[in-house]
Amino acid sequence: MNLDKEIKELAAGMEQALVDRRRDLHRHPESGWTEFRTASLVISRLQELGFAVEFGRDVMVENERMGVPGEEVLSACQERALSEGANSELVKKMTGGCTGVVATLDTGRPGKTVALRFDMDCNDVTEAADDKHRPNREGFASLHKGCMHACGHDGHTSVGLGVAEVLAKLQDKLVGKIKLIFQPAEEGVRGARAMAAKGVTDDVDFLIGSHFMMPKIGFLAYDVQNFLATSKLNVDFKGVAAHAGGAPEQGKNALLAAAAAALNLHAITRHSGGSSRINVGVLRAGTGRNVVPAQGHMEIETRGATTEINDFIRERAEQVIKGAAMMYDTEVNITPMGSAPGGNNSPELAEKIRQAAQRLELFDNLTDTYDMCGSEDFMYFMERMQKQGKQAAYIIIGASLAAINHNDRFDFDEHAMVLAVSLLSAAVADLLES
Amino acid sequence: MNLDKEIKELAAGMEQALVDRRRDLHRHPESGWTEFRTASLVISRLQELGFAVEFGRDVMVENERMGVPGEEVLSACQERALSEGANSELVKKMTGGCTGVVATLDTGRPGKTVALRFDMDCNDVTEAADDKHRPNREGFASLHKGCMHACGHDGHTSVGLGVAEVLAKLQDKLVGKIKLIFQPAEEGVRGARAMAAKGVTDDVDFLIGSHFMMPKIGFLAYDVQNFLATSKLNVDFKGVAAHAGGAPEQGKNALLAAAAAALNLHAITRHSGGSSRINVGVLRAGTGRNVVPAQGHMEIETRGATTEINDFIRERAEQVIKGAAMMYDTEVNITPMGSAPGGNNSPELAEKIRQAAQRLELFDNLTDTYDMCGSEDFMYFMERMQKQGKQAAYIIIGASLAAINHNDRFDFDEHAMVLAVSLLSAAVADLLES
Amino acid sequence: MNLDKEIKELAAGMEQALVDRRRDLHRHPESGWTEFRTASLVISRLQELGFAVEFGRDVMVENERMGVPGEEVLSACQERALSEGANSELVKKMTGGCTGVVATLDTGRPGKTVALRFDMDCNDVTEAADDKHRPNREGFASLHKGCMHACGHDGHTSVGLGVAEVLAKLQDKLVGKIKLIFQPAEEGVRGARAMAAKGVTDDVDFLIGSHFMMPKIGFLAYDVQNFLATSKLNVDFKGVAAHAGGAPEQGKNALLAAAAAALNLHAITRHSGGSSRINVGVLRAGTGRNVVPAQGHMEIETRGATTEINDFIRERAEQVIKGAAMMYDTEVNITPMGSAPGGNNSPELAEKIRQAAQRLELFDNLTDTYDMCGSEDFMYFMERMQKQGKQAAYIIIGASLAAINHNDRFDFDEHAMVLAVSLLSAAVADLLES
Amino acid sequence: MNLDKEIKELAAGMEQALVDRRRDLHRHPESGWTEFRTASLVISRLQELGFAVEFGRDVMVENERMGVPGEEVLSACQERALSEGANSELVKKMTGGCTGVVATLDTGRPGKTVALRFDMDCNDVTEAADDKHRPNREGFASLHKGCMHACGHDGHTSVGLGVAEVLAKLQDKLVGKIKLIFQPAEEGVRGARAMAAKGVTDDVDFLIGSHFMMPKIGFLAYDVQNFLATSKLNVDFKGVAAHAGGAPEQGKNALLAAAAAALNLHAITRHSGGSSRINVGVLRAGTGRNVVPAQGHMEIETRGATTEINDFIRERAEQVIKGAAMMYDTEVNITPMGSAPGGNNSPELAEKIRQAAQRLELFDNLTDTYDMCGSEDFMYFMERMQKQGKQAAYIIIGASLAAINHNDRFDFDEHAMVLAVSLLSAAVADLLES
Repeated sequence: MNLDKEIKELAAGMEQALVDRRRDLHRHPESGWTEFRTASLVISRLQELGFAVEFGRDVMVENERMGVPGEEVLSACQERALSEGANSELVKKMTGGCTGVVATLDTGRPGKTVALRFDMDCNDVTEAADDKHRPNREGFASLHKGCMHACGHDGHTSVGLGVAEVLAKLQDKLVGKIKLIFQPAEEGVRGARAMAAKGVTDDVDFLIGSHFMMPKIGFLAYDVQNFLATSKLNVDFKGVAAHAGGAPEQGKNALLAAAAAALNLHAITRHSGGSSRINVGVLRAGTGRNVVPAQGHMEIETRGATTEINDFIRERAEQVIKGAAMMYDTEVNITPMGSAPGGNNSPELAEKIRQAAQRLELFDNLTDTYDMCGSEDFMYFMERMQKQGKQAAYIIIGASLAAINHNDRFDFDEHAMVLAVSLLSAAVADLLES
Repeated sequence: MNLDKEIKELAAGMEQALVDRRRDLHRHPESGWTEFRTASLVISRLQELGFAVEFGRDVMVENERMGVPGEEVLSACQERALSEGANSELVKKMTGGCTGVVATLDTGRPGKTVALRFDMDCNDVTEAADDKHRPNREGFASLHKGCMHACGHDGHTSVGLGVAEVLAKLQDKLVGKIKLIFQPAEEGVRGARAMAAKGVTDDVDFLIGSHFMMPKIGFLAYDVQNFLATSKLNVDFKGVAAHAGGAPEQGKNALLAAAAAALNLHAITRHSGGSSRINVGVLRAGTGRNVVPAQGHMEIETRGATTEINDFIRERAEQVIKGAAMMYDTEVNITPMGSAPGGNNSPELAEKIRQAAQRLELFDNLTDTYDMCGSEDFMYFMERMQKQGKQAAYIIIGASLAAINHNDRFDFDEHAMVLAVSLLSAAVADLLES
Repeated sequence: MNLDKEIKELAAGMEQALVDRRRDLHRHPESGWTEFRTASLVISRLQELGFAVEFGRDVMVENERMGVPGEEVLSACQERALSEGANSELVKKMTGGCTGVVATLDTGRPGKTVALRFDMDCNDVTEAADDKHRPNREGFASLHKGCMHACGHDGHTSVGLGVAEVLAKLQDKLVGKIKLIFQPAEEGVRGARAMAAKGVTDDVDFLIGSHFMMPKIGFLAYDVQNFLATSKLNVDFKGVAAHAGGAPEQGKNALLAAAAAALNLHAITRHSGGSSRINVGVLRAGTGRNVVPAQGHMEIETRGATTEINDFIRERAEQVIKGAAMMYDTEVNITPMGSAPGGNNSPELAEKIRQAAQRLELFDNLTDTYDMCGSEDFMYFMERMQKQGKQAAYIIIGASLAAINHNDRFDFDEHAMVLAVSLLSAAVADLLES
Repeated sequence: MNLDKEIKELAAGMEQALVDRRRDLHRHPESGWTEFRTASLVISRLQELGFAVEFGRDVMVENERMGVPGEEVLSACQERALSEGANSELVKKMTGGCTGVVATLDTGRPGKTVALRFDMDCNDVTEAADDKHRPNREGFASLHKGCMHACGHDGHTSVGLGVAEVLAKLQDKLVGKIKLIFQPAEEGVRGARAMAAKGVTDDVDFLIGSHFMMPKIGFLAYDVQNFLATSKLNVDFKGVAAHAGGAPEQGKNALLAAAAAALNLHAITRHSGGSSRINVGVLRAGTGRNVVPAQGHMEIETRGATTEINDFIRERAEQVIKGAAMMYDTEVNITPMGSAPGGNNSPELAEKIRQAAQRLELFDNLTDTYDMCGSEDFMYFMERMQKQGKQAAYIIIGASLAAINHNDRFDFDEHAMVLAVSLLSAAVADLLES
């Protein structure tokens, strides 16, 4: 049954609601693993719409999370969420930062299981404060200093709830099962691994992720390719302090260990199989001019055109780091702070999305293969599903951005949300029957 | 005329005053170039005692100062000094951190000119806050967080004013001229160069510096040898940021420049002429994991058994740093933050101090040659005077320290101040006639 | 006029002559810039065939040659060539290693000018000495220890003379001008630049280069793409020796300069525009365990997917090397030892070659685009011609190699020479008329 | 019994014999572990004089030898020794380079056991070939290219045989036991450890070593101090070769491992306990410009003012080397090539030598403490004896050198040999009775 027309009308009719929701989220941004208020709103709304909702430790393997803030930060954010209206019962179940949500609508009729994934976290950016920046001018700028939705996840979350509403209203005309995944901590590629490891997609036949990007409204890339695999690592060398003049031989120099590591990390060989990257983005070591430095901290990332290439670089990096620690007789800890595999859209699913978009006549710029040149932890879901013989795809939706992602003047054309709700709802409706 | 007996009695009689003064200074510590209140007190007291007092730009070459804090810090400290009772007229003349003081008492009778040098600044240390630490227990701990007299300069300043009082009272029995130099910013060897360069010792025949140290009360080292020459440098590499994944070739990597510099600085050759040191004590570079770092900051120091050896190491260090900047196509600035030449006490003056100490019978542990194993910017005065054929010496006075210098539990036996006032006054009285 | 049939017959008829020529050259291999005997044979034969032959300084800019051996080696090789039958008049004109040859056959009839380029030099390899290796078994192994035709240039040269004969015999049926370029020192990409700079292709409309490679007889790649740009550099640091125990500070350490350069060269950033390489393949420094090393020698190469990327890497490399020299206060010389730009076949010319091959029915495996993944200084000719709006192409001819290029067991199926003579002659005949 | 007069006469009478012996040895220099002819002559002569002679594996622990040449070199040198007149029976027992000799003369009367140590090996230097150099002018220059007695061990050996003759002639007037140790491979501090480990000094009460040095004839330093401890290490990194353009990721880069090691070795911290040194004197890595280097070789040495400081530097060096190997995933071997502890003369023995020298009236320049500023593997004997409560001393005898040690123009005033025979014989005669 073709529901395109009804879907388009329902989506168009909820435009103001989408905007309101997005602006509320924009005012209350929450960074990775602290999406207490956001998740709480999402859960409540999905329950209202009749979804069966699971969240917290039920939808993620706690230990597989990466880059989780310290307890002080977590509990301060939890307090803030409560003070800003989050449901305290729900928030309690997410204590410690288990802020993922999975909602299911089962039509009771045989059919496929189709899932959509949305991300909810903000960036560690302080929003621009002048009137040239619309959120400021129109009064929905971030209330949280150092936090800002500068990558559009406020819009994504609003779209997710919009799709939920459309499909709930149409559920009598649908078959199979609809699954909506709201993921925390996409920034820094920290969150998906824990939800994928829990198996939240294991009963799913088709999964679609989506992101607003720079191109103008009307742009759609349905066949995204060449996601870069990546690893984010923190490295901490621990040496022994000593007076640099009086007894330098009693020290174990963590600064030199870090410096030697940094140089030799960048000297890791190129790979003939495709492009790779390594970056020591931060190095902080030592406490005083006349003290042999006892600690050295580095923040690094590796990338590869494929998971294999990234694994090669990451394994070489670990050898270099351990060798540097041995050189200076220091201890060293390597902490994974984020990661994502590489991959490509399942071509059949990409094609089905293209067909839906074409039918809807909402997109005037359908782009064939699109080279991602970046990383997304959506790939953890995609990799797992493709290994199970299922299909996954990630699409890019033009949203006429006001500034590039992560910039303090980031904003998007909110009408893109109507297009996204329409496309995702129509694609799901199709796929359930396929 | 032997004044030993009168001197000992005067010194003993001012013990409570010495303690009160020291504790007032201890409560109000001021770090290098911000000694507005301390200098203001010193000036006022010396004027009361009849000394002709010069200070501010009159006693230092402003540009020769090193490691001067930024204007914000300076003016905040100036405000604090005023709020804590400093004389506003005096403080105004020291604006910008010209906090040195030179006081002269001219007997009008022919004789030598004899000078003493005292230091006034505190350390960047937060004082221990429990009752095991006497300043806390007895209510004279630092009122300034992050500032503490943890090297006894409060005591030195109090001794300086004590000596001034003794000699002023005895001035009718003295000949020649007495000169008292109160120096800012000894910590980090930042202050002496500017006062030496102004020529404040150019009319002086004998100069004595002194320091309280670890040994028990009664210890005196009058022939200190082998002061290490030293240079303190800050290094700032300035590169160009770039996205480490998207366009790393557009970056100029200041982190790698700093890392390469750090390694190769430590690889600077040993010197067959005597011991040397180099330390990169602090390295901070980069702003984010996925950004090619555009800035790299290092704090380093060099030392040498002689001025020549230290100059060799420092010059090699500058080549290494500039080579590293060239390697990574970055800019680099090297800022001198402090320095001191090496040297040895003038032996004749050391012997005269020994004789005075012996006569006074206040010190039970007179130590012959004492190896300094450290640096002091008093050497700028000493070097200049010895080149002019005059004599200078630095003495170590035991003060039964409660903890090592610069520790947050540093304290000293205040009775050492009476001994110091006695010895310095007696030595000056002798030398004026020599 | 279609001459395919006559060409095929002529080529087939000279098979034994091709083999004899190749084996004579194989027995007398000459490495880059010492091809005195080879060039002498080539010149004589071409003159016999009626070509106007230029050679020596007339066909190359002497200063643009790279990696030329020292005078001792050159004159020893010159002597050897004479003792092995080279024409002494001809050899005299090539003194100093100007061993390039350009021969022209002008039909006198209007038409295009078509050129072919062949390379003549051998490798610095000692040939395998056992009977499993055919050249040995059949008595045509290298007579020169340390020299071996291990890349098939003996075959290329033989093919070049074969083509000359075919076209000379058919000259009455041809139009335009034929130009044959015999290049020295292709190994190490050292020779083409000097001939290209002389302008030997400036009157040419079409240029074809060719190489025997691994695939089986019958393979032809006519559209070779993605030649890597490359630079070969020798680096010599010159420091000052000193006794490492007695007076290390008197030394200037060229070994550490080289080591610092090596590490930081490998740490040169990846380029987002395409693949790049850097390799320090050789580092030799120092003379004795207890001496501060006064000299450090490195042999390095850079590569890039495009000329621009290689230029970027090479320029960065030069900065790193100069920075390392500054770090250790040494002198440094960087000597270009070889280079080649990147590039791609002219597509129209590639297509014409494909058509000729198809007509001849001698190749059963015509390959479309072929990724070079390597460097060739033929690109100097190609780059110059393409900038002038002319066409150039490089083709790969399968020759069922016995071992990979540069291996001491390298050999090829000599029948490939007949195919090469046929194809190149047919293509030239066509192009002259185009 | 004072034998000074007889000793002086015997020594003076053998001057020509000493010169002849020295010049024969000078003509036939043998480097460390190949002293087959030298040892053979020494053994024969000592046997003639009535000494009980042990040699070969009987006087050394074979495995404790360091820096032994390969078998080819050893057997070639053995052949050369035979061709130059060495006794084939004796040489056979030294096969493999066990070229040490220990000879004992037992007077049969109770007394002390006194030993002298002499070294026999030459340097790897080619002797100057012009007539300004006396050995050349007078016809006794080295017959062995690349080998030269450029450190006077030819003289030392001749002196040893002279002392043997003097003491043998006087044996009826002596008591106790005389032991003469002729040591191979002193150059590179390679030989003493193996003889000391065998316990050849374990029955000795007093041991004296001696060396000719730069000062004029008549100079004697009897109290040598501050021998530097040292370690000589060879380091070999073994990686995996790969094509640097085609598949660099398949390589394991031994050149970069060596470069990283070299830099970080030189960055090993200074030691506050005294001077230290580290030098990477040789680094050779890689085989070709376009190959990822599979091997890297380094020759290094460490030194320390004391055995403890040298041990600290050597242990740190081993960590650095192993860390570098880990960084680049290579194997590494560290081979000890020589070593010596630090130490100081036994003061009582030094005093006795001084007394003997004074009585003899042959030395006009007796020097008190003499700072060695160098290394000697005699220290292995000294260390072992001092730990056993016995006395050892090393003396420096002025010999008016023609050029510094190890120079190709080295020569000495041969009259120094008479002085050395006299002093050593007189000192032994005294000590036997002490």
